[in-house]
Order: sequence, then C-alpha cells, then structure tokens
Amino acid sequence: MINIGIVGYGNVGRGVKSCLIDNDDMQLIAIFTRRNPSSITTTGEKNIVTSIDKLLDYKNKIDVLILCGGSATDLPIQSPEIAKNFNFVDSYDNHKNIPSYFNILNTKLLDNKNTGIISVGWDPGLFSLMRLYSHSILPSGKTQTFWGYGVSQGHSDAIRRIDGVKKAIQYTKPINESVKKVRNGIDTELTTREKHTRHCYVVVEENADIKNIENKIKSMPNYFEPYDTFVEFISEKEFDKNHSKMPHGGFVIHSGSTTSDTSISKHIMEFSLKLDSNPEFTASVLLAYARACARLNKTGKFGAHTVFDIAPNLLAKESTDELMKNLL
Amino acid sequence: MINIGIVGYGNVGRGVKSCLIDNDDMQLIAIFTRRNPSSITTTGEKNIVTSIDKLLDYKNKIDVLILCGGSATDLPIQSPEIAKNFNFVDSYDNHKNIPSYFNILNTKLLDNKNTGIISVGWDPGLFSLMRLYSHSILPSGKTQTFWGYGVSQGHSDAIRRIDGVKKAIQYTKPINESVKKVRNGIDTELTTREKHTRHCYVVVEENADIKNIENKIKSMPNYFEPYDTFVEFISEKEFDKNHSKMPHGGFVIHSGSTTSDTSISKHIMEFSLKLDSNPEFTASVLLAYARACARLNKTGKFGAHTVFDIAPNLLAKESTDELMKNLL
Repeated sequence: MINIGIVGYGNVGRGVKSCLIDNDDMQLIAIFTRRNPSSITTTGEKNIVTSIDKLLDYKNKIDVLILCGGSATDLPIQSPEIAKNFNFVDSYDNHKNIPSYFNILNTKLLDNKNTGIISVGWDPGLFSLMRLYSHSILPSGKTQTFWGYGVSQGHSDAIRRIDGVKKAIQYTKPINESVKKVRNGIDTELTTREKHTRHCYVVVEENADIKNIENKIKSMPNYFEPYDTFVEFISEKEFDKNHSKMPHGGFVIHSGSTTSDTSISKHIMEFSLKLDSNPEFTASVLLAYARACARLNKTGKFGAHTVFDIAPNLLAKESTDELMKNLL
Repeated sequence: MINIGIVGYGNVGRGVKSCLIDNDDMQLIAIFTRRNPSSITTTGEKNIVTSIDKLLDYKNKIDVLILCGGSATDLPIQSPEIAKNFNFVDSYDNHKNIPSYFNILNTKLLDNKNTGIISVGWDPGLFSLMRLYSHSILPSGKTQTFWGYGVSQGHSDAIRRIDGVKKAIQYTKPINESVKKVRNGIDTELTTREKHTRHCYVVVEENADIKNIENKIKSMPNYFEPYDTFVEFISEKEFDKNHSKMPHGGFVIHSGSTTSDTSISKHIMEFSLKLDSNPEFTASVLLAYARACARLNKTGKFGAHTVFDIAPNLLAKESTDELMKNLL
C-alpha cells in the first residue's frame, strides 16, 4: 500500500480524494489544510482533515504527498519546505519558471534523500509528453497545441477582479478552421488570434456599467486583448445552473514528413483530451505519478523529476510482465 | 555520434537510411543484407552495403543495430545471435509471442552486457504507450484501438498466395460510426466486424476464375471471414498507378470517468496517427529508440527493454534542460 497525503483541499485536492477509489494500491492517510480543519467536511473516515501545521507529525506515515496548491503563490513557498521531509508530486504550471523551480527542489530533495515529480497534469504533463515523443520521432516537424473547449481559471479570475462583476467564467475555444489546417499538415504560422477565441459569461452587480465592463474585459492586455473575445451578460440563476462545471481539453498536433529517394511522405501525430472535469482528471494523472514517485524513492532515485524522466511502466499498478502481455 | 547499422534492406531498412538525415547525432556505418550486396544500389557513399556474413567484423564499429527483418521468420532467428554481440532495436510485432521473445533476448543481452529495445514502432510501440498511459491514469476506463485507413502487409500477402492472383493489396478501414461511438464515450462492446472493414484490390492472371478468387478471399478464416470484405478486380496499370504507397495509421481511444461526491465526469483520451508511409514512420520511431538504446548501454543498463521501460527524455537529442525549457 502506498500511503498518500493531500496538501490543499480545493478542486484538485477533492479530485485526488475521489480518484483514490480507482487505485486500490493506495490509501489516504490525511488531508492537510490551512483552513480550520473542522470547517471541512469529507465523506468517509472522520478526522482525516488536519491542520497543515501538523504536517511534520506525519513524516513517517506518508509515502507521497500530493501538493494541490496553486502555482502562483502556494507551491513556490510550500514545496521547498516539503521537499526536506517528504516525497511529493505537484502540478506546478508556471511554464516559464519551471527550470528554476526544478533546480531549487532538486537540491533540497537530494540532500534529504527524497523524490519529487513536478509539473504533473495534462499541460504541463501529458501534452508535454506528446510534444516530446513527436519531436523526437519527427524532429523536423512542427507541433501546435490547442486548448479547449474549456474553462480557464486564470482568465475567469481576471474578469472577477473588475469592479461591478459578481460572478464570471471564461471558456477558451480552439478555432476549428485552424485545427483543421494543422491536422491536414498545412504548414502555416498561426497568430494568437487565429488559434483560440475567448468566451466570457458574466453576472454583474446591480446598476453596474455593462458597456464599461465589456470594454475592460476586451482590452485587458495579454489576457483578452490578443484574442477575439465574446462577452455575454447573464443572470445569476442561469450562471449557477449552466456554468458550475469545469470541462477542459485540447489537442497536440505534430505534423512532420520523411523524405525517401523518390518522394516526400507526410505524417500527422495527434493527441487529444476531452475532459468533463479538469480538476478530477488532473488528480488522476497526479495519482499515477504518485505511484511512480513511491517506486523511484524505494529504489534510491532521489531528487526532482518531470514527466520526461519517468519510464511509463512506473505509472501502472501491474507488473512489467502483465503490461507486456496485455497492453504492448 | 551514434554509429548505426541496418540489418535487412527492405521497406523499413530503406526508411531508416532515409530518416537518418533528420538525426544529425547519428551516422550510418553499414547496411547488412542476405542478398548479394552488389545487387543493391543506394544513394550516397559507396560500399556501405555489406553481406550479413561480415556482421561480426563490425562489432566495435557500431553502437546500435537496427533490425529491419520480418517478425515471422527473420527476427526470431537473427536477434538471439545478434544480442550476443550488439546493442539493437527491432520492431518485433508478433504480439502473442513478445514475452517469450523478450525473455530469450534478455538473457543473451545481460550475459554480454548489451542492450536491446524490442517491439518498437507504432503498434506495438506508440499505440502501446498510449494504452499504458491511459490505463494508468483512468484505470477503470476502456481502451479501443482502431487501425487504418492503411495497407496491411500480412493481408495483402495472404491474397497473393491464391492461385490466379498476380498482384494484390489490402486496405484496412476503421468503421467511422464505431469510432464515433467510442470517441463519444458510449460504453459498447464492438465485434470484430463492427470495428473494421477490409478492402482488396486484385490484379489477376489471364483467364483466372474471378468469382472463385473473390470467394476464396472472403471466406479465408481469421484474415477475412470475420470482416465485411470488399474485393475489386483492377487492371495492372491501375494497380501500379494508384496502389504503390503504404499509408497507414489508426486511433487509440480511452474512455473513462471519475466520480465525485455529487457527479460522474467522463473523460476521453485519444491518440491518432495518419501516416503517408508506414515503413518510413516506423523507421523514424526506431531511430529515436536507437538513441535511447545507445544511452542506456553507456550508463550500464543492459538487457532487453520495451517502449514501456524507456523514459521519454532518452529519445530526444536535446539535453534535459533544453527539453524542460522548450517542451514541458
């Protein structure tokens, strides 16, 4: 049995708890929170929710911690401390800062003979794997990643920070025509505007200046300005009814070619995800990599890792023999 | 530089030679053939085609041999001998016999401190990886593999063995309606007949009994009888003009779900390939794994491996740091 701890009980943390039922070689030991533990109710066993301050008491009771905090402010502070005492997986997704985050953790983990796998999920994560496999196989090809149809948490937050906005959600949508072009191997440079559109559903406070809010959204630099953005104002009732889910997904499409003496052959490699629940799927990926993390640590492989370093057979519960027989 | 040798100069062997141009960290040292070497002409350097009998002379000149022989009769005889003296990758694709093939080679490789990666290509190979990743992440889900639209070499051969057949090619086609069902997460058991159709284009000898040939094809056990099979007789001219390519591809679709306290969420993971040239794409995969093979051997990882054992970052030319920066 692999003993699991969850740090941070938001959407992903709850997803991890739910998804453990599909992994009968793992058991949940504790959920660690910064909130008052008694304010959180979970199904199943009592007293499993604990204050984050008690984390060190669990040092020898937990094989792998699953860090479910946010990448902006939680993980950069939590992870280096946790790396001193625990093996862990996280879904750190600040692409630009991954190398420095990796290096800081690698030192702490190696010093303490612990193992960490960072940036686990679907992007970074499974989509990164697809980019790596396809680039390695057809090195002169080109990879395009499209995201959606799905909810972007960051963009939804950005709208909610505007004065007069009560509730808001933003869906990212790949532009079908561009996906089709890439999928058909048409070599084309796509601008940001040509790849995705952004669709915002907004509930406003009473007497809010709707025209002004729409303008503020559409002109927001980086977040919305580079895109064709569509804003729709809806009632709170409609919002609660139709916009409470967190679907997501996307496509990684690699288009390359090989050249023989007589002809050029095109090849398209495509990986796609269509997820009803982004946090629960992310949680499922985290659990598979938690298994790999426990195994790496047992065999003396310490330090920081990414999905690129993990041999696929470390992810499955089954033995190498069974995998060879049933899945190869 | 990784020094490469090719054993067997058929479609895949020629593909490996062509695809080396995209891998500038590798160079071709020799092509080994059972035919008379002077009967084979290649572009580029002279004297690169050598008799297979000279293989041992190259023991210290080659880092990885790429075995391009067939799985039915070539590899089971060649590989155990080669494993004593060389590192190698092959595309052994007799799914049922992989475990015993693996075990035989593992012993020979370990005894001689050599490294082998077997069953490399796209199925077995990349499709196997997708089955493993998706099974590990959503263990209670179901995976379906569809092949085509593409040429099945084995089925084309089977037709050619019928009396009166001069030339023949067989295309496997996934049934769109079934692919759609699986892609939409509809939980359904599909029979062999419901997954693929088989399309045969046949050129016959003069005065051949066409009706009889068509019956023989359609009633052939295992190969055609379990499928809806379509046979078309065409002229040799049309055959040579329209049926000289070897396209292939297919889909691996995994449909699973996660269950929270309040709802069930469906998730679809899909990987697809659309290949203009099956042998050249297979060759590209073999070369990426040849790189991994050379690296494993250098770091003392001897014995037999499959794609399941290979960490993705071993496949790419770039350093771990570059990969983290550019692809994660």
